[in-house]
Amino acid sequence: MSYINKQWRLKHRPEGDLRIEDFEWVETMMEPICDGEVLVRHIYLSIDPTNRLWTGEKDSYLPPVGLGDVMRGVGIGVVEESRCEKLKVGDYVQGQLGWQIYAVLDGRSLAKLDVTDDVPLAAHHGLLGSIGVTAYFGLMDIGQPKLGETLLVSAAAGAVGSLVGQIGKREGCRVIGLAGSDEKCRWLTESLGFDGVINYKTDNVIEKLKTLCPEGIDIYFDNVGGDILDAALGLINVGARIPLCGMISTYNDRVPRPGPVNMINILVKRAKLQGFIVIDYFKRAKEAYDYLLTAYREGALDYRVDIVDGLEQAPDALTMLFSGKNQGKLIVKVSSDGG
Amino acid sequence: MSYINKQWRLKHRPEGDLRIEDFEWVETMMEPICDGEVLVRHIYLSIDPTNRLWTGEKDSYLPPVGLGDVMRGVGIGVVEESRCEKLKVGDYVQGQLGWQIYAVLDGRSLAKLDVTDDVPLAAHHGLLGSIGVTAYFGLMDIGQPKLGETLLVSAAAGAVGSLVGQIGKREGCRVIGLAGSDEKCRWLTESLGFDGVINYKTDNVIEKLKTLCPEGIDIYFDNVGGDILDAALGLINVGARIPLCGMISTYNDRVPRPGPVNMINILVKRAKLQGFIVIDYFKRAKEAYDYLLTAYREGALDYRVDIVDGLEQAPDALTMLFSGKNQGKLIVKVSSDGG
Repeated sequence: MSYINKQWRLKHRPEGDLRIEDFEWVETMMEPICDGEVLVRHIYLSIDPTNRLWTGEKDSYLPPVGLGDVMRGVGIGVVEESRCEKLKVGDYVQGQLGWQIYAVLDGRSLAKLDVTDDVPLAAHHGLLGSIGVTAYFGLMDIGQPKLGETLLVSAAAGAVGSLVGQIGKREGCRVIGLAGSDEKCRWLTESLGFDGVINYKTDNVIEKLKTLCPEGIDIYFDNVGGDILDAALGLINVGARIPLCGMISTYNDRVPRPGPVNMINILVKRAKLQGFIVIDYFKRAKEAYDYLLTAYREGALDYRVDIVDGLEQAPDALTMLFSGKNQGKLIVKVSSDGG
Repeated sequence: MSYINKQWRLKHRPEGDLRIEDFEWVETMMEPICDGEVLVRHIYLSIDPTNRLWTGEKDSYLPPVGLGDVMRGVGIGVVEESRCEKLKVGDYVQGQLGWQIYAVLDGRSLAKLDVTDDVPLAAHHGLLGSIGVTAYFGLMDIGQPKLGETLLVSAAAGAVGSLVGQIGKREGCRVIGLAGSDEKCRWLTESLGFDGVINYKTDNVIEKLKTLCPEGIDIYFDNVGGDILDAALGLINVGARIPLCGMISTYNDRVPRPGPVNMINILVKRAKLQGFIVIDYFKRAKEAYDYLLTAYREGALDYRVDIVDGLEQAPDALTMLFSGKNQGKLIVKVSSDGG
């Protein structure tokens, strides 16, 4: 069978805010697959803040996407042709499918998904995917929550943040979240059981933090960096832990911005600021899935997915993340789950 | 017996650089001691960067020294009068004796020193004191050195830094040091066996770091903060550890300065930046002393002490630390060891 592929390729390195013009829409005929390869039809493309880092010219934890190359992205898809022993037609897989309808990849680079009836396929981009692994290990391994401690979470209505807050509650913490709209703040308190919320766009963050964290901050799960990291550092307790999961507030900066003025508190409060990337935890993913699936089946985890329809929308979807317009884990539906 | 005491009291909170006028020299008659107390004659006063933090108006890990109060300082002294069961006249003790000739203290607040013939009394301010405990646990507990790794040390000719570098060599690291004069740099390479040195006052730090750390930095033992922390962050490897022991370059700042621009590398390199204060490790001090005393007796540790004569010199001595004029652990000799 011959396929026409549609792709978003990286045309320019974005300067400052991402623009749709930084990507180019290309349609090409596909070559037949070779031994060891599979052809995967892409169903769900995950849109994450880290995608923005990959478009820059500097190495991050992965090399930059080359100009003219298909934009990198993690996807879930279904195998349509296989010349790889371990995968057969109809298998669901997850891996670096890229911003395209079809991907031809070495079968060994893909993880076969164990799809069960009570969990939707898209959850493998969330609860049972990188998001869940990120939230679980960032909080449990680095944050090490203890009963009665105060946990602050930024981007708390986001995919990772909303799980972190709920795991924190389950572990007995007092959980305070920062989000960018009153609707998101309401969701955090009314549906997820957060003990306090701050709308960072309209509240005085420093003052409200002081009010909501009268006993200081023991864990700050940071997704954003920048000014909010600085404000949190001003209130940390002795022995505080700061899992540094992302710094989305800085990814669009044209010129790298200076770090926090309250850096000295890392010293005087004997705090730990530790960066982590989910790929380092994949080998322990089952631990996270077991915990999260148990909590999910008990009804203790609420989890929102925001699905945007059509690969054409991928660049727009990525810019949505930076304006905070999405409601939960952002996913682009590339093709139908039914086939 | 009645005693005349001489003291340095804190008169003003220093703004920017410390000045001798920030302290006031006072002579007073002493009151008799009460039950449970001892009168200690101060012999050696330790001068440390952290003293500057205590003079500020903000809480650090200890409350600020009050205006009009005797300046805080750790000292070694000998008991001259005792109404405390656990200490007798002639015992050597260590504790918060303050910037004064005589201190009257609750006997329970003092540590009795186990003075041996082959280690000079002043070493209990260094190798066998806070300095040794700081260097040992900062490197071993937080830095976790591994054979063949690259260890960078700032203020490497300082009391803590010079021990850290030598412990690093003993643990099989490649050790690069930063110091502020060619004489100090020569001492590091010729006497202490450092693999490379940077004179941060005359060299291009970023360029020389790149040359001396071709395989990146695995551990950065930071005593200074500021620009050198930023430069080091630019070269850290995946999984790097940064024990944050001090930020002396920022202590005299009138306005808190922003943190490092290369902060993002803590995230992308999954690094750990962890502050620590020696007091948290005192309960494990024996581990450090055993290690250091063994190394010292094997002749594997070179250790310099810079002794300034007379309590009158204490404020000047503290300013010396910030200009880097001292050569090794800085101590003020307050009175004679002989009595």
